[in-house]
Amino acid sequence: MIVVLRATAGPNEALRLRDWLSCAGFEVATTHDAGREVLVASAIGEPQPDTVSRLRADPAVERVVPLERPYRLVARMARDTRTVLVGDVVFGGGEIVVMAGPCSVESEDQITAAARHVARSGAKVLRGGAFKPSTSPYGFQGLGVTGLVLLRDAALESGLLTVSEVMDPREVDIVARHVDILQIGARSMQNFDLLKEAGASGMPVLLKRGMSARYEEWLLAAEYVALAGSERIVLCERGIRTFEPTARNTLDVTAVPAVKSLSWLPVAVDPSHAAGRSDWVPALALAAVAAGADALLVEVHPRPSESVKDGVQALDPAAFDDLMANLRLISRAVGRSVSTVPETVS
Amino acid sequence: MIVVLRATAGPNEALRLRDWLSCAGFEVATTHDAGREVLVASAIGEPQPDTVSRLRADPAVERVVPLERPYRLVARMARDTRTVLVGDVVFGGGEIVVMAGPCSVESEDQITAAARHVARSGAKVLRGGAFKPSTSPYGFQGLGVTGLVLLRDAALESGLLTVSEVMDPREVDIVARHVDILQIGARSMQNFDLLKEAGASGMPVLLKRGMSARYEEWLLAAEYVALAGSERIVLCERGIRTFEPTARNTLDVTAVPAVKSLSWLPVAVDPSHAAGRSDWVPALALAAVAAGADALLVEVHPRPSESVKDGVQALDPAAFDDLMANLRLISRAVGRSVSTVPETVS
Amino acid sequence: MIVVLRATAGPNEALRLRDWLSCAGFEVATTHDAGREVLVASAIGEPQPDTVSRLRADPAVERVVPLERPYRLVARMARDTRTVLVGDVVFGGGEIVVMAGPCSVESEDQITAAARHVARSGAKVLRGGAFKPSTSPYGFQGLGVTGLVLLRDAALESGLLTVSEVMDPREVDIVARHVDILQIGARSMQNFDLLKEAGASGMPVLLKRGMSARYEEWLLAAEYVALAGSERIVLCERGIRTFEPTARNTLDVTAVPAVKSLSWLPVAVDPSHAAGRSDWVPALALAAVAAGADALLVEVHPRPSESVKDGVQALDPAAFDDLMANLRLISRAVGRSVSTVPETVS
Amino acid sequence: MIVVLRATAGPNEALRLRDWLSCAGFEVATTHDAGREVLVASAIGEPQPDTVSRLRADPAVERVVPLERPYRLVARMARDTRTVLVGDVVFGGGEIVVMAGPCSVESEDQITAAARHVARSGAKVLRGGAFKPSTSPYGFQGLGVTGLVLLRDAALESGLLTVSEVMDPREVDIVARHVDILQIGARSMQNFDLLKEAGASGMPVLLKRGMSARYEEWLLAAEYVALAGSERIVLCERGIRTFEPTARNTLDVTAVPAVKSLSWLPVAVDPSHAAGRSDWVPALALAAVAAGADALLVEVHPRPSESVKDGVQALDPAAFDDLMANLRLISRAVGRSVSTVPETVS
Repeated sequence: MIVVLRATAGPNEALRLRDWLSCAGFEVATTHDAGREVLVASAIGEPQPDTVSRLRADPAVERVVPLERPYRLVARMARDTRTVLVGDVVFGGGEIVVMAGPCSVESEDQITAAARHVARSGAKVLRGGAFKPSTSPYGFQGLGVTGLVLLRDAALESGLLTVSEVMDPREVDIVARHVDILQIGARSMQNFDLLKEAGASGMPVLLKRGMSARYEEWLLAAEYVALAGSERIVLCERGIRTFEPTARNTLDVTAVPAVKSLSWLPVAVDPSHAAGRSDWVPALALAAVAAGADALLVEVHPRPSESVKDGVQALDPAAFDDLMANLRLISRAVGRSVSTVPETVS
Repeated sequence: MIVVLRATAGPNEALRLRDWLSCAGFEVATTHDAGREVLVASAIGEPQPDTVSRLRADPAVERVVPLERPYRLVARMARDTRTVLVGDVVFGGGEIVVMAGPCSVESEDQITAAARHVARSGAKVLRGGAFKPSTSPYGFQGLGVTGLVLLRDAALESGLLTVSEVMDPREVDIVARHVDILQIGARSMQNFDLLKEAGASGMPVLLKRGMSARYEEWLLAAEYVALAGSERIVLCERGIRTFEPTARNTLDVTAVPAVKSLSWLPVAVDPSHAAGRSDWVPALALAAVAAGADALLVEVHPRPSESVKDGVQALDPAAFDDLMANLRLISRAVGRSVSTVPETVS
Repeated sequence: MIVVLRATAGPNEALRLRDWLSCAGFEVATTHDAGREVLVASAIGEPQPDTVSRLRADPAVERVVPLERPYRLVARMARDTRTVLVGDVVFGGGEIVVMAGPCSVESEDQITAAARHVARSGAKVLRGGAFKPSTSPYGFQGLGVTGLVLLRDAALESGLLTVSEVMDPREVDIVARHVDILQIGARSMQNFDLLKEAGASGMPVLLKRGMSARYEEWLLAAEYVALAGSERIVLCERGIRTFEPTARNTLDVTAVPAVKSLSWLPVAVDPSHAAGRSDWVPALALAAVAAGADALLVEVHPRPSESVKDGVQALDPAAFDDLMANLRLISRAVGRSVSTVPETVS
Repeated sequence: MIVVLRATAGPNEALRLRDWLSCAGFEVATTHDAGREVLVASAIGEPQPDTVSRLRADPAVERVVPLERPYRLVARMARDTRTVLVGDVVFGGGEIVVMAGPCSVESEDQITAAARHVARSGAKVLRGGAFKPSTSPYGFQGLGVTGLVLLRDAALESGLLTVSEVMDPREVDIVARHVDILQIGARSMQNFDLLKEAGASGMPVLLKRGMSARYEEWLLAAEYVALAGSERIVLCERGIRTFEPTARNTLDVTAVPAVKSLSWLPVAVDPSHAAGRSDWVPALALAAVAAGADALLVEVHPRPSESVKDGVQALDPAAFDDLMANLRLISRAVGRSVSTVPETVS
C-alpha cells in the first residue's frame, strides 16, 4: 500500500511510520513526491487488518492508497474454475440459468401454476418469497414457513430447484431445510450475522447487491459468506439507487463485466426489481445476457394484476415465454445457451 | 390517493376500478385530466395496505399518487409533545443532548478515560461499540459482551447513560440489559426483524438513517419499532452516500428541518461518520445544531491515533472541549442550550 | 394536473384557486382526499407555462402533480415515424448505426487511419473531437477548426458522415459547415443558448444526456432544439454519475426502453465514456443493442496508448472489428442489423 | 504521482515507463508492492498536462494515483490572504456578506421594493436574474437587458452591489456593464467558453457548483476563470443532486470546510435552491454560517405567491428580517458578524 504523508510532516515522521510498519509485518521503501514523503509498504505474509485504518488516523498521514484487494477467497485469482454447482445446475457455465417465479408465494394454486409454467418454458429454479422485506410494517410480510412448504412442493412437482429469501439469522436453518438456494436480499447485504449464518450452513447463496453498495463492499459481503463456510455464492445485480425517479432502480449492467474481472463468482441479474415495470423487463434481461450475465432472476406471476405485491413488474406467462424465446437468440449470439424447452411437456 | 388511468383506458375501466376501490374501503370521485380518467379515492377508516401496490399492477392504471402518509405512530400529528425521555435525559427539549465516546470499546483504560472526559465536558450519554459492523470479515468485530460490561461500568462511574449498537436480533436482550439506548446502525435500518425485536424490548432506540434511505423509508423503519412496542425513538442522520469522493459521506443537514416537519420524533446528527475526518467534525456539528438538531453523536477517543478503528474521524479530548464550548455559543444563538460543565469537576 | 391543498387550507382556498385556475385557462373539478381539498385541473388548449410554479408558491398549496408531459414536439405521440434521416443514413430504422472514431482529432495520419479502418468495418459515421471539453484548463483543448477540416477530409475519403462536438454558441456556424451532425456534449445538455443555436441551424443534433440529468430534463433539452428549428435529434446515453467509483460512469441501459416509451426520438448509446476502460466497452455496447439502442458512439483509435486523451477507453482497430462481428450477431438476435462490411475494401 | 503496473507487467515495462516519464520531465523512483511494479514520479517543474491520461492508456498500467493538485491559482497555498474584494465589500473577511433578492427581475416595482427591503435589513448585494436558465423552453426566460437595467437602478437607489447570471459567452460584456458580480449558474459550471470570457472580463465571479460536480471539478472550473484573468472568485454551494426526492436538492454543508481546506477562495451558500421551499431556508442558512460559510445568496420576494418562478422557495420580507436577526446571533457565536441594519432606516 502507498502511504502519503502530509506536506508538513518531515523525514522523522517517515522514519517513525516506517518502523511501525516494519513491526506490523511490512517491507517498506521510502521515497518522495510532490513535496511529500511517500512510503510504499508491501505486506510480508497476511497483512494485519485495520492497518489502513490506523494509518489514516495518524496525524502525519495525509492519505493511504491500498493496492491489495481486501478480499481473498472470492478474488478472481483464488480459483481456476468460475462455476458454482447447485444440484445438477451449473452457474457460470455455458448455459445461462433462468430463475423465475412470483415475488411472493401467495397460495398453493398460484405457486403451483407458476412453477408449471416456468418449468415448461425452460427455467431451472423457482423463486418465490415466503419472508418478505416490506418497507412498511403494514405491508404484506409473507406466508412464512407455510410459504416455504408450498414453494418446495410446487418445485418438486415441476422438477425445479428453489431459491427464497431469508432475513433473520434465526431462520437460516428452517429456510435451508426447504430450499436449495438461500437468497440474501439487497437490504441484507451487510447483515453480517446473517451472512455468517448463511455461510455456516454450507448452502448455496444468491447474494443481492445492496442498493448503494460499491463492488468492493459487495465482494466483501461475499467474503463473509465464503469465510464462514460456503463458497457456492452467486452474486445478483438488481439495480442501484440513483437520482432518476422514473425507473424503480437503475440497472448497473457494467457490474457484470466489472465484477467478473474482480471475482470468480458467477453474476446474475434481476431485471424485475431493476425495472420496476413489466414492459421494461425484457430489454434489461436481454441487455444483461448480452453483457455476460450468468443467470437471471425474473418475476413471473400467473395473473400479475391480482398479485398482492409488486405485480407491476411481474411478467405474465405469455410474456415470459416471449422473453425465453428472445433469450435463446441473444445467448446464442454471445456464444452461450439458455435451457431448451424440456421434452416432457405436460 | 389519486389514481390516473392510461390514456388508452376508458370510462369502463374507470367504473371497474371505482367499484373495486369501493369494496376495498374507499370513497371514490371520478374526473378526468389530460385525456385520462382520474379517480380520487379517500380511505374510509384504515386503508388496506398494499392497495397502492395492487393498483399499480392493474393494466389500466398509469400512475398512483398516494396522499396519505404511510406511517401513523411517528407522524407529526400523532403526538402533541415532541420529546423522548431516557432516564432523566430529555431528547427534543430545550437542551441539546450530547452523546460522545469512542467508535469502539477497546479496553478498560480507554473507555474509562473517555467516559471521564466526556462527562466532565458536558456529555450526557457515553457511546462505544461492542458489536462492530465491519465491512470486511477480517476487520475488528468488537469486544462483544465484554465490551458492553466495560462500557456500562465506565458510564456508571461518570454518571452517564449509554448507547451501543446491536446488529443481531438474538442479541437484543443482552444488549438491552447493559445499555440505556439501543443503537440501530445505518446498515441495519431495514433489518426488519431487528427493528421488531428492538421495539418489543420497550427500550429507547437510536435509529440511524440508511446510507441511501429516503426520509419516508426511515420513518417507516421507525414505525416498525413503534408498532412493536417502543415509541422512545431518536432518529440519527449520519450522512448519505453520494458521488462526492472526498468526504466519507455527505451530511444531509436538510434532513433536520424536513424530518421534523414530518414526524414528532427528535432528530440527532452524527457529524463524525458524516465527515470521516476529525478536522471537519466541528463544522458539521455546529451546522447540525444551527439547523435544529436535538442531539449529537460524536466520536471522541483519548488518543485517536492509537484507535483500532476509525481513529481518523475521532476528536481527542482537547478538540472535544473546544467543540463543546462552541456548541454552547451556537445553541444559545438558536434559543437552546447544551449541558454546562458539571460542578463536580475532578 | 392535480393540486393538493394543505390540510390547514379550507373550502374558501379551494374556491379561490379554482377561480384563479379558470382564468388561467383550466377546467377545474374539486374533490377531497385524506382531509385535504383536491383540485383536478385540465388545461383547455395550451396550458400557461409556469402555472405549476406559481401554484407551488401559493401558501395554501401542499403539492402539485402535473399529469401532462411538459414536452410536445419530441413526445412519442407527436410523430408517427420514429426515424431521423441524415444524408442517406437512417437513425431509428432496422439498421443500427455505428458511429466510431477517436476521442479527438490529433493529426492527419491519425484521423485518416481511423476513418479508413472504421469504414472498412462497417461504421457509417466518423467521430472525432476538435473542440474538447477539458475538465482542467491545462488539458488538451483540441485542434479547433484545423481539426474539423482534417475530420471532414478523412471522412470524405472513406465515405463516412461526421459528428463532432460544438460547445460555444458562436461556433455553431463553423462547425455546421464542416460536419454532418452537431454533437452537444453531456456538460452542454442544459446550455440553452447552444441548444437554440443548434436548433436554429437546422442541422442534425446528437444530444448527450447530462451526467445527472433526469429523462424529463433530457427531453426538454431536446424540445429546445426542436422548437428552435431542428427535429433531427438523436439522443445519446453515455452513463450517469453515481456513487460507484470503479467505472468512469454508470451506463443507464434502462434509459433505452424508458426514453423510447416517452419520445419518438432515436436513442444512441456511448459505451466508451460509460465504461471508461476499453475492456468493458464491448459488453456495454452489446447490452445497449440488446436493450434496443438505435445507434452506438464508440471510441476507436489506431494506437490507443499513444492517444493524447482518454486512450484508456478507446478500442484499437482489432478490438473494434471483434466488436462489429459480435454486434452483427446480437443485432440479428433482436431483429435488427448492423452494416455489413462494404465490398469496396481498400 | 504513483503509477501502479499490472501484475502481469514486469521489470522491463517498469523500465520503459520510467524512461518515458524521465523524458516527460519527472524524477522517478521504482519499487514494488502487492506483486506489482510501482513507480513514484515527481514532476520537475510544471508537469505536462495529460500525462496522467496517457499513462492510464498504457496497457502495462493498472492505476495512476496523482498526488499533485491539478489546480494552482486557486489552491489554498497559492495566496496568503483569503479574501475577495468587490467595491468595498469584502468576501471572506469577518463579516458574512448577505446577497439577497428575487429569483428573477419581474418588474420595476418588484425589484425596487425588494432592493429597498433587503438593504434595510442588512444585505450588501442585490440578486435578480435577467437571463433565466429554464429547464423547459416554454418557461419564463427572463427580461433580458431590460431586467439588468431595472436591477442596476434599484440597487443604485438602495446602495447595494448587484449579482446576476450570465449564460451566453456573447453576453458577458453587456452583463458586465450592468452588474458588479457575474453569476455563473450550476448548469454553466463547465461551460468552458463562458468561464474563459468571464475570467477575461476581469469581473468578480460568483461560481455555483454544478449539481453533481466534485470539489475538484468545481475548483478546476474556478481555475479556468482565474487563468483567463480574474481571481476575484466566490464559490457558491447550492445543493447537489441525490436520491432523496423530498427537498429540491441536498445541501452539502461539508463542502464549506472541505473546499476551504483545498482553496483560498471564499465559499458562499445558496440555501434557497438547496431547500426548494421557504420554510426550510432559514435552517439551511444558519447551518451554512455555523459551518463557516463566508456569504449567503438568499431569494427574497416582496410577494412570493405572485412570483413568476420559484416563488415556493422565496422568503417574504418579514421572513427575511427574521432570518437576518438569527444570522446575527449565529455569526457572533462563530466569531463573525453580519451587517447591522444601516442607520438610514426608513
